[in-house]
Amino acid sequence: MTGKRMTSFECPVPISQYPRVLLAHGGGGQFTHQLIERMFVPTFDNEALSERHDGARLEVEGARLAFTTDSYVVRPLFFPGGDIGTLAVNGTVNDLAMCGARPLYLSVGLILEEGLAMDTLWQVVASMRRAADEAGVRLVTGDTKVVDRGKGDGLYLNTAGIGVIEHDRVIAPTRVRPGDVVLLSGDIGRHGMAVMAAREGLGFESTIESDCTPLAAPVRALLDEGLEVHCLRDLTRGGLASALVEIARTSKLHTHVDEARIPVRADVRGGVRDPRSGSAVRRQRRAVRRLRRAG
Amino acid sequence: MTGKRMTSFECPVPISQYPRVLLAHGGGGQFTHQLIERMFVPTFDNEALSERHDGARLEVEGARLAFTTDSYVVRPLFFPGGDIGTLAVNGTVNDLAMCGARPLYLSVGLILEEGLAMDTLWQVVASMRRAADEAGVRLVTGDTKVVDRGKGDGLYLNTAGIGVIEHDRVIAPTRVRPGDVVLLSGDIGRHGMAVMAAREGLGFESTIESDCTPLAAPVRALLDEGLEVHCLRDLTRGGLASALVEIARTSKLHTHVDEARIPVRADVRGGVRDPRSGSAVRRQRRAVRRLRRAG
Repeated sequence: MTGKRMTSFECPVPISQYPRVLLAHGGGGQFTHQLIERMFVPTFDNEALSERHDGARLEVEGARLAFTTDSYVVRPLFFPGGDIGTLAVNGTVNDLAMCGARPLYLSVGLILEEGLAMDTLWQVVASMRRAADEAGVRLVTGDTKVVDRGKGDGLYLNTAGIGVIEHDRVIAPTRVRPGDVVLLSGDIGRHGMAVMAAREGLGFESTIESDCTPLAAPVRALLDEGLEVHCLRDLTRGGLASALVEIARTSKLHTHVDEARIPVRADVRGGVRDPRSGSAVRRQRRAVRRLRRAG
Repeated sequence: MTGKRMTSFECPVPISQYPRVLLAHGGGGQFTHQLIERMFVPTFDNEALSERHDGARLEVEGARLAFTTDSYVVRPLFFPGGDIGTLAVNGTVNDLAMCGARPLYLSVGLILEEGLAMDTLWQVVASMRRAADEAGVRLVTGDTKVVDRGKGDGLYLNTAGIGVIEHDRVIAPTRVRPGDVVLLSGDIGRHGMAVMAAREGLGFESTIESDCTPLAAPVRALLDEGLEVHCLRDLTRGGLASALVEIARTSKLHTHVDEARIPVRADVRGGVRDPRSGSAVRRQRRAVRRLRRAG
């Protein structure tokens, strides 16, 4: 049942090129893509994975399910508009919604660092419950591990989620067709900038809040309208650029983007182009590096 | 749908008593129990969680599912008889089997530390595939995060799993009845001792190998025999003692254990009672502390 057996036992990522894991391997861009394409997809080799979607579509005894997972390592744990708990619930809820599924159940894996304030843990746990209520999902199973002081960073979370697909449409990158239009449901960059500002103490004049929110209801409304939706994506780590590149790759099509029409709030744009710290380009590059741990 | 709303916003674990997370909170014993009972179960408050089982039993469109998760933080990553990858597949497969389910699909969440050798990652990933093949499950969705050097410990894994329950029996701690008999499927303590020996370089004369293996097939054979099974447990972190205490608590019954009839291999027993390091009792206590990261 698990496709063909492994035949190669040699590391598929050329060791001479990248002998060690870099931060960029978790950034959601080119390096992450390489790990996925060269190591994970060929090794685990199955249909669900090869769709390169935000989650797997599965069928179990006639029920059509979506299944997804994400780990959350955001710093700081609390930021304007949310915290790691909100993010861990909404991130996984949204990955299910992007598969066209109604999110139902989440699991929670906590990796705590010895010495974490008990009250911090409580705030995150309470926040997960509130986010789950808002998204209409239940946290039904979990696990807690504690690692030695200095071997973690306070608190890492993993959530996995199960959703049910209640329609016949397949919503996946492989379904994108020539002529399809890219729609954005809101302005971009706000979550990343909120986290970065909180981390670096940039102190923007207006406080930028994360737009972290559950998207299952708007997706459902979209589908209920009968619109012919081919693919959905929640713009997380890699942002709009990575998502478009990935979808273009999977669908083997080009994407035309008119940058001027991408909505970015003035204060978010200002954060990227802060004149206090050199040229806009240098600043932007640094911002991108810092954003890698915003998801 | 998520039970009653949260009413309290105060940390349910008395801060004055445990203001910070201790290693023991992840050990699978009394402290873990306190976190689960005082914080997680009342906060997330739902039926599946309140069964206090190795996984949640759920129904989705007529399909009866089991859903579970575990994070894996074992050190060293490789030990006689297995590695963190084998453990992450079999641990979650076995939690599903303990719910009486046939394991089908796993998700994988990787938290890598910057600087991890790419070849180490590859060995773990290849090992997961082999373990998945052996257990008859597919790794269908995943996520990779990389944390700064010094904020992890090489590699942490999370797996969540979905299984299908193909019979009408409910197998859970709440089903245990007076007169039930406790059966052990093999000798205990071997995995923990193998990991501890590898970590501490104890150098036992005989190499003790972990007994980490998928248990879905033997569980299925047990059920196919028509035996009236009430509860199943995979003895992980907390070992036999914790499992019996937990089940006794949940079922509100006493358990009678004849220690002499618990099978422990001579070399495993010898490892716990190593005469080089003081009294058997002190040594045993230390062993228990070390075992906390064996699961």
